[in-house]
Order: sequence, then structure tokens, then C-alpha cells
Amino acid sequence: MNIVIIGGVAAGAKAAAKIKRLLPDANVSIYTDDTHVSYSSCGLPYYIEGNFTDYRALLVRSVEEFNAAGINVYLQSKVEKILIPQQQVLVCSNTDARLEKYDRLIIATGARPLIPNIINVNNFDNVYTVRKIEDGIAIREKMLQSKRVVIVGSGFIGLELLEAFVKNGLEVSVIEKSNRIMAAFDTDISELILKRLESIENRNFKFYTNEIVSEIIGENKTATAIKTISGKIIETDMIVLSSGVVPNSELAKDAGITTGESGAIKVNKLMQTSVPNIYACGDCCEEPHLISGKSVWVPLGSTANKEGRVAALNAAGIYTPFEGVLGSAVSRCLNTTMSMTGLTEKEAIESGFNPVCAIVSKPDIVPYMPDVGDITLKVIADKTTGLLLGGQAIGSLGADKRINSLATALLAHMTVSDFRNNDLTYSPPYSTTIDPLLDVMNILCSRVSNHC
Amino acid sequence: MNIVIIGGVAAGAKAAAKIKRLLPDANVSIYTDDTHVSYSSCGLPYYIEGNFTDYRALLVRSVEEFNAAGINVYLQSKVEKILIPQQQVLVCSNTDARLEKYDRLIIATGARPLIPNIINVNNFDNVYTVRKIEDGIAIREKMLQSKRVVIVGSGFIGLELLEAFVKNGLEVSVIEKSNRIMAAFDTDISELILKRLESIENRNFKFYTNEIVSEIIGENKTATAIKTISGKIIETDMIVLSSGVVPNSELAKDAGITTGESGAIKVNKLMQTSVPNIYACGDCCEEPHLISGKSVWVPLGSTANKEGRVAALNAAGIYTPFEGVLGSAVSRCLNTTMSMTGLTEKEAIESGFNPVCAIVSKPDIVPYMPDVGDITLKVIADKTTGLLLGGQAIGSLGADKRINSLATALLAHMTVSDFRNNDLTYSPPYSTTIDPLLDVMNILCSRVSNHC
Repeated sequence: MNIVIIGGVAAGAKAAAKIKRLLPDANVSIYTDDTHVSYSSCGLPYYIEGNFTDYRALLVRSVEEFNAAGINVYLQSKVEKILIPQQQVLVCSNTDARLEKYDRLIIATGARPLIPNIINVNNFDNVYTVRKIEDGIAIREKMLQSKRVVIVGSGFIGLELLEAFVKNGLEVSVIEKSNRIMAAFDTDISELILKRLESIENRNFKFYTNEIVSEIIGENKTATAIKTISGKIIETDMIVLSSGVVPNSELAKDAGITTGESGAIKVNKLMQTSVPNIYACGDCCEEPHLISGKSVWVPLGSTANKEGRVAALNAAGIYTPFEGVLGSAVSRCLNTTMSMTGLTEKEAIESGFNPVCAIVSKPDIVPYMPDVGDITLKVIADKTTGLLLGGQAIGSLGADKRINSLATALLAHMTVSDFRNNDLTYSPPYSTTIDPLLDVMNILCSRVSNHC
Repeated sequence: MNIVIIGGVAAGAKAAAKIKRLLPDANVSIYTDDTHVSYSSCGLPYYIEGNFTDYRALLVRSVEEFNAAGINVYLQSKVEKILIPQQQVLVCSNTDARLEKYDRLIIATGARPLIPNIINVNNFDNVYTVRKIEDGIAIREKMLQSKRVVIVGSGFIGLELLEAFVKNGLEVSVIEKSNRIMAAFDTDISELILKRLESIENRNFKFYTNEIVSEIIGENKTATAIKTISGKIIETDMIVLSSGVVPNSELAKDAGITTGESGAIKVNKLMQTSVPNIYACGDCCEEPHLISGKSVWVPLGSTANKEGRVAALNAAGIYTPFEGVLGSAVSRCLNTTMSMTGLTEKEAIESGFNPVCAIVSKPDIVPYMPDVGDITLKVIADKTTGLLLGGQAIGSLGADKRINSLATALLAHMTVSDFRNNDLTYSPPYSTTIDPLLDVMNILCSRVSNHC
């Protein structure tokens, strides 16, 4: 049996390793246009920051390890076409083109950075995106010779890069087209993140919200400034674009495989596309949202790993449904933890719920302890049923802990009332006597119709 | 309406504050034989350690705050008798005895240290227990003049004290009658805790397991050594007894209120004792275990707070069931986090389950990050049904995070299969791509009959 996997960063690498274990006799091949396989893309901001100096720490499995496991890896080998009736893929390298047969195909083509519509955006060598190992190496090299940087976009990756650059002494300008930073969060939480970051003394970074970069200015392939639609000119030594990603779904779409509203590949719970022997997993495909029931596109490394595993199991004939995602995420920026799970208030309304929410801000552990930090925690529930819908936390490093407990509650479709007396651990170095998560549930209880 | 509350540390203080808000016209009084009211007993080891210097940081609400809220607080006023037919309590202070009427009585008498059966245990001034504010003050004072200490008992409090004394430069001997330290954990985890603590270089502490202190030796009210049943003599400047606690339930029992097998007061889900207008909450009463369904006695500050609130609501006529506890706990000893929830393997067998378990030891965040620590995580499930039963974690500071997610899963009665694709947050500073909790679930899945 020939199993072809297109793409090998997270989902593809996981799928290959898993399916080879399940079907040791199968011929398993990974084709990727990348120069590396199986690496932690999420680690690039920390490599750029200098938390470690050898980029090879980001590699999970080497080509040699794949080969030793009996898996073929073809780097810089782009699949240009999927021929569904023939069950073949057209693979092109720099020098060669060939057709490869498949019995099962797993598409794990991932996502790529969105390139905003900016004049000259492709004309300079010091304009970067952050996705591949080479991107990280190039940005770090340039950063070490730079004094100023412009980051376009203030989402998770934008703020992780902000930390990296600030810690390396650069003056950072962040341009955000929305009226607020970290727009994945609800407005009230976004505003708190901004306030928190802007309260840092002697900070060497500035946010420009409601601003769009219209043009990049420079000469001899070197950008020297950006110009915004409001007419601002900000001089810079380098520019990083982190305005989001788009799914690499064109290959599938061209072959006639169904894509969803998001543009990503549609799959069922078995990670099967509209063509039964073709599976998709990771950042190139949609997944069901566990709370809204909608098909959503939440490209995240943790999900990619799970989906790669599930796709492999199903492709190997072992029925394994993937129930869906919550969109749980966490990110750090300069000692601020930002974390979320489930639906935001806005998404809850769009999904037909009647959301109510509660917010608490309090110390994250008992205030007499030396390492006390703070947490602001927002939890959203459906007013009518009390069903928990989502939550967001910002604060010190322990903020993500509460979001993981909440994610578990969302997975179990718990109500506020179910959760409120949850026996969470307590000891002064770890929590307040009544955990912030229980405090917020107690308040929320009084706001849902289904009283508790 | 007269509401009398006996005891005012955690459950009693919480109950008083809550019921006064619910019934503003009621006459609410706290009687306690203590010299303080409403304080964090769990914080005493950290006060002793010197994390903060003013013990008043441990006080949650002062007498003045209670009075301002219209709540009477009677310190050093011991309730000597509950007269059920008369609905009165007999209160004795040093100089005075009087009878007080109650319409609702809330018993929150807490627990007291177990005094082991040791010759001369009560004859010396430098033999301590850790429960009240005065205990903390006395131990800290003595510690600052001491070089050696013997701790009797190696449970949560024993190990918290170990940290406190070690950080203050004392030579510490811990005597444990069991064959292992931290015997609340399963044997394998206990052994790992021991190994971890004993791997600390130049450590100034020693564990003696399978040892019982038979006698305390000294003169002029000053202990100078302990003698063990195996004949060891360990010289010391002070001795702290932390061999567990016993419920202060005699008052209730003498009045004819039903107590359980543990000796603590039996209550129903409304925290009601066998006498309908008498409630009990906190360390003096039993509670249902959410997994085993048994009535258990798990005296913990976080539970006491919840029960105090629930007792107040029900005493005020607002139907509020308390579903029970998981026995979730966490403790720190010298950078080791030890945390647990639900049933241990041993308890699972005793409760009629057919437990299987999985253990993983791995980095707690991606290994290329500078603050990487480690975690060993054990999760227990029922082989037949896949129902999650409990778990234990030891490791770096993030170990408790996984236990709180697991506690939430236990509360929801999730199976291994329900949990395995839980959308937990991931980012390199916070987790591994596949969280240790998901790793352990994946292994556990293959060991339960209800495959996933």
C-alpha cells in the first residue's frame, strides 16, 4: 500500500510516524516543498529572542530518523497536482518532475503567512514573515544588526515577536489595522492587554492601532521606512509581517476537493475530505468547534498534532473520530500571559447563544506570598441554560492554568452550576483559597437564569 | 433569628459572612476558643519560612471588619455544650459562663493536630504543633535561635515545614512511621518524591522512614533529643509534630449528633447534621467523594471555604447542594510540586474499581526553552469503563496545572476517551506540543477495555 503525505511540519510528520507504526508494510512517503521536515514553527519567536542559539533544537524528528523508521522524506519536492481518478500526485523538484501512486493520500500542506496588500511588499530583502526555519534564521541575523523594527500585526505571533525584539534592545513599532491589539480576544480583554503592556516603564515599543501600512519605502532592495494610510512615516531597519495566515488549500481545491467558507479544506470527523481515500489534517483544514458546532478554521500546532494522529488512524482503517476543537491558545509577551478557550462573547452571539459573562481581577496566589502575580479572568456562559461557552485570561504566568481547567469543562459541556464547587488544588504558592476560576463562576452563577 | 457559629477559622468565618449577607436582620455570632478569627492556617509554613514577616498578613477578616458587618465575634469563648432540646449553647470564657439561644447552629470547629503517643510529648516547651497563629509565631521565634529540628511526620505540612527550616539553615531530621514519605500518594510517586528530594546536593535534611518516635528526652521543660523505637537518638533544638489531624467533633458527638467512621461529623449534601437546624462545615465534618461516592474526611482549607458558603445558604433557607470533593491537593517542598486529585490506585481498589494506570515523565514545557522543568504524571482509570478515577503529579512548578484539568475531568465523570483530544493550550513557554496530560491519556487509552 502506498501512503503519500503532502507536507511534513507538524500534522504531516505526526501522521507519517503514526501510520508507519500502524501499517509497517506500507510504503509511506512525505513530500514537502520545505527544506526541513518535522519542526516546531511555534518556537521561532523564542529562537529569534535568543532563548537558545542552535535552530536545530526546533527539529522534532530528522530525515534520518524518518528514514530509520522506514519513512521516505522528499524535501524541496512540491506536489503540484493531485490526480484523483488516477490516484497519483505530480511531484516537482528543481530538476525533476514525476508521478507517484497513492492508495491513501494525507494532505498536510499547512498554512502560509498572509501578505497584506502593501505597495512594494515583495521588493525588499529586509521584509520578513515567520513560518519556516529559514525565516527565523534570517530574522535573527538581521535583528542582531538592527536598531528599529516594524511589526505589522498584533496577534499572538506579533506580540511574541515584540518580546523577542524588545529583549534584544530594538525599538519596536507595531502597526495594527484593527482598533485594538490581540483582536482574537474580546474588546475588554484586548484593552487590558494594551494597558498592561503600555504600563511597562521605559518601554521601547509603541502600538499604532487603526493604522494600515500602505507602502514600504526603500532602495536597493533595502526597506528603510513604512508609510501608513494616515500619512505616518516610520523609519526602520527591518519589517516583519505577522498579519495572520491563509490555508494552503489551493492544491486540494484545484483537484476538486471541497473547501469550506474559511477557504480551508472541509473534512468529516475522520479527517476525511470529500474524496474518501484522501484525508487532510493540520493548518490546511477546518475542524468542528465543540461549542458552536460550526466548522471553523483554527490553525494551531497542538491541534495539528492531534489531527495528524487521527488522520493516520482512520487512513489505516481504525475508526477514530475527532470531536473538534475549542480554539484554546496561550501566548506570552513580556511576562504577560494571554490565554483563551471556547467562544468569545462576540462569537457566542454569532453562534446563537445568549451570552452573559463575569470578570474578576485578583492576585493569582495568596497575596502574602513573595511571587504573587495577578490574573484577570473572564468567563462566558449561556444565560438561558448556564452552559459554559468560553473564557479568557491575562496576567502572570499562572493564567493559562485556569484556561486549561475551563477547556476541560467546555469539552464536558459543563454548566456554571456544575463547575462552581470544583475541587481545584489549593496551597499558598499555587492559588488563592478560592481560586479565581471559582470566584468568577460564583459571580457568573448569579447572572444565568438557571440559578445555582 | 439567632444564628450561632462555633469556630471561625475558614468555614465558620465564611459561613458567618455569607449568612449575614443573606439574612441582614439575623443576629449572627461566632464563638471560638481561639485568640484569632478568620485566618489562613495553610500559610503558617510560609510565615515560618520568612516569606513575609508580619503574621497579620494571614488574617483574612479582622474582628473589627466582622463587627462592621454586624457580626459578633467572641474570641477565647469556648462552646462547652450544645443543648439540642433547648436550642442553646453553653459558652465559657476564662471568667464567665453563659447560655446563648440559637435558631440555626453552624458547627465549624475544625480539626486539631494529632498528638502521637510519645513518652513526655507534653512535657517540653520546645515541642510544637502547627495549627494556630500562635503556633507559627512560637515556631518561627524558636527556629531563629535553633540549629537542628526534628519533624515528626512527612505529609504535606511536614514537607512544607522541611522547606521552611532548610531555607533558614537548620539541620532537619524527618521521622516517618510509614515505609515512605508523603504516604497520601501511591507508593511509586512517594518513592519519586523521596528520590527527587534526596538528589538535592549538599542537603541538610534526612528522612527516617519506618521509624517511630518513642520518647522525647530533655530537662527543665526543654527537649534536647528524640529517641526512636529502633533505638536511634537524634539530638535537636526543637521538635515539630505534624503527624496528621483529628476532627474536633467531640462537642457534636456529646450532644448526640451523628459522626461518621472517620470520627468527623456526618452531614447530608446541604451540610445538615443529623439534627435539622444544626449544620456543620469545614474540617470537622465528612463530605461525599465525587468518584467513590463514599463519605470521606478530607480536611482542606479550600473545601472549608466552599462548605462554609453552602452551609450558610442552606441555613438561610436557600437550597444549595454540595456535591462533594475529590481530595485535590497541592504542596511545594524545595521547588518540587506535589499534587493529586481523586482516588489513588489503592483507594480505587478499595472503592470497587478495577484500576489501570499510566505514568509519563517528561519536560513540562518544550525542552529548548530556558525555564524547562519536568513533570511525572500518573493517571488512573477504571479498566472496564474507562472512567477517570484520579491522578498524581510531581515535578516543577507547573505540575499542579495538569491536576486541576484532571480534577475538572473527574468532576464531569469523563472517560479517558472523552479526554484524550482535549484542546489544552500550547505555546513553548507553557507546555509541550502534546501536553503531558494528553500523553498519559494516550497511553492509558490502550490499557482500558473501552478502547479509544
